[in-house]
Amino acid sequence: MPIPPLTCPRCGTTAEDLSGCAACRAQGVGANPVPPLADLTGFRLADFPGGPWGLPAALPVPGEYAAAVGLGEGGTPNVRIPHGGSAGGELWVKYEGGNPTGSHKDRAMTVGVAAALAAGADTVVAASSGNAGAAAAAYAARAGLRCVVFTTPKVPETLRAQIDALGAVRVVREDFAARNAAMRAAVGRFGWYPLTSFAAPPAGGNGYANEGYKSVAYEIARDFGERVTAVVVPVSRADLLSGIARGFRELRSAGLLARTPRLVAAEASAAAPYAAALARSGRAEQERTTVVDGPSPAFSLGGQRPTWQGLDALWRFDGAALAVPTGEFMAEHRRLGARGLFVEPSSAVAVAAARRWADARGGTVVAIGTATGLKDTASVRAPAAPVPELAELTD
Amino acid sequence: MPIPPLTCPRCGTTAEDLSGCAACRAQGVGANPVPPLADLTGFRLADFPGGPWGLPAALPVPGEYAAAVGLGEGGTPNVRIPHGGSAGGELWVKYEGGNPTGSHKDRAMTVGVAAALAAGADTVVAASSGNAGAAAAAYAARAGLRCVVFTTPKVPETLRAQIDALGAVRVVREDFAARNAAMRAAVGRFGWYPLTSFAAPPAGGNGYANEGYKSVAYEIARDFGERVTAVVVPVSRADLLSGIARGFRELRSAGLLARTPRLVAAEASAAAPYAAALARSGRAEQERTTVVDGPSPAFSLGGQRPTWQGLDALWRFDGAALAVPTGEFMAEHRRLGARGLFVEPSSAVAVAAARRWADARGGTVVAIGTATGLKDTASVRAPAAPVPELAELTD
Ligand SMILES: [Zn+2]
Ligand SMILES: [Zn+2]
Repeated sequence: MPIPPLTCPRCGTTAEDLSGCAACRAQGVGANPVPPLADLTGFRLADFPGGPWGLPAALPVPGEYAAAVGLGEGGTPNVRIPHGGSAGGELWVKYEGGNPTGSHKDRAMTVGVAAALAAGADTVVAASSGNAGAAAAAYAARAGLRCVVFTTPKVPETLRAQIDALGAVRVVREDFAARNAAMRAAVGRFGWYPLTSFAAPPAGGNGYANEGYKSVAYEIARDFGERVTAVVVPVSRADLLSGIARGFRELRSAGLLARTPRLVAAEASAAAPYAAALARSGRAEQERTTVVDGPSPAFSLGGQRPTWQGLDALWRFDGAALAVPTGEFMAEHRRLGARGLFVEPSSAVAVAAARRWADARGGTVVAIGTATGLKDTASVRAPAAPVPELAELTD
Repeated sequence: MPIPPLTCPRCGTTAEDLSGCAACRAQGVGANPVPPLADLTGFRLADFPGGPWGLPAALPVPGEYAAAVGLGEGGTPNVRIPHGGSAGGELWVKYEGGNPTGSHKDRAMTVGVAAALAAGADTVVAASSGNAGAAAAAYAARAGLRCVVFTTPKVPETLRAQIDALGAVRVVREDFAARNAAMRAAVGRFGWYPLTSFAAPPAGGNGYANEGYKSVAYEIARDFGERVTAVVVPVSRADLLSGIARGFRELRSAGLLARTPRLVAAEASAAAPYAAALARSGRAEQERTTVVDGPSPAFSLGGQRPTWQGLDALWRFDGAALAVPTGEFMAEHRRLGARGLFVEPSSAVAVAAARRWADARGGTVVAIGTATGLKDTASVRAPAAPVPELAELTD
């Protein structure tokens, strides 16, 4: 099976490489070319085992790669969380930390590395502040490919160790821009196969890899059916959000869901380009939004620009973008811990936004908990209530 | 549904508390009372969704607790790993790192906390060098119970942060013995509900909780059927091994498996009481084995004594115990990383033992990869091969 070409969903241009649409870039817009949507006619949702390889026919890569690149990704659990408000309804966290490397990125990287194999690549490359680098390293190792990860000094220690343990070469550049420039140079000079976003303005990650995120939509549809009213997703380049939107579009087209949920982008207030974009009036204005970003404990979020496909996901699914202040999402982070879920701060951004949504509107709201908290422990404060009896234990 | 009493599998005495069998302890043997085996007649393995709550009827606690304590544990993937030897066969890792807190302990703690709820407890307590403490913290938090974890200064930083984030109170004692003594005192004085082993000689963890490990056997039986020839399990108090053995006994009794696998205990050579025990001649000698233990990177293993139920699992399933030197399992740890699996060193002990077994005997060998490597990154060395092209990247 040949790999289908990628076409820009904004302007229709066929892509020449994996750096985003050059025509849109020339207009100041980051847009990510995509393969055709899959036809899910005949797909039996109830039998879906989960994960990208649970439905290889929906992927743009040959299904026979599953054994070469699969590590058991996807099929993640839904955990219900109490919430307030008078509107009733349910708040759920879909916990992606149970994936092989501990984040949702595994769903994309397993497909991206399969695409690299199909392209005959011997080296894959990622520019990442963490989760994507670890996932790229794992799937490249699984497939026997070399992996180079461009990072910055801000990568948490645990993630650094994880990338090392998975046999990838880590190259540190001083900041986000230098990191992406180094990746761009490596892709241009050596022909290495890119798995993440590296263009400016950011266009989004590998268009084949991102198809792995459609499986999140299939799992939500299987588990909740039409009663899910909103799916809340933390965004930066919005690869996950736009992949989920594509999954729901496929489900809707095949008649498998008569009603699809609203999609909500969750951002840290320190950098909230989607909220800023939706506050503007026309699409031409929205897609060229630029904000000033600041530091945030949600280190994997942020950015100054929305991607076009992230906005498109919101336009198509009656979307909204919520910007959450640091205090609010770090309080959510502690609250989730006190309910048994230890997630990365970026996940808490999504849950905090979902809580606002559920409190105000009710319905069945699913927030994507993107990664385990084990990767970034710097933000953990010991929150336990004192246990008076312990004073009596003197042995 | 009342909770059934626990009975000592060695001497038949009904247990008075959760500290192990007092009658056997008086004879110098650590033996752990258990509930009755479940009758699996009519269980359809092919439909088993995985996890302890995938078959509540096999648990000694009421199934209606599933929603109160469940976090989506179990249902972990099998990942095939190449191996050598002329005997052929297959080597698989069942990766438990995808559980909610990143280890197999979640399967036990979800059941143990349900048992605590059924007992009307308000505080649960664990003595743990890591994984069990994090799992106890998570499920206690989920259920709204207070959790106290007694640890030592040797707990890795990431695990410490995880326990804190999950709202448990961490109490540090200078060593293993002091840690267990403090837990014993707390259980005795305050009536706190114990989730882990704290007696001497070690008797094993909470006898209700351990029933959660039976689900590992059900999942292996569902996924591999009768072709699995050996299951290799890292052991210390052998809670996991003996739980898996009980699961296979239930499957065999119900006629669901005509052939059950051999069970193999994997130990670090630094402390290998099961291998030492099996090298002795009679059961009376074996069950009183004591070895001198040394430090090991497989920090969650070790101990000077086998538990009786661990030996019983080996006696019943044509078992063996393999002691693996540090160099061999740390080489396995690196090899697994280079195949995409980042596990804790204890898991690498099991895989190294399973590799030996598969190389020598062939068959379908399943090693339990007990936990993610994210929890203990101290042992990670950057192993990547150099990438010469990087010297050309000067931007
Ligand atoms: Zn375009
Ligand atoms: Zn006894």
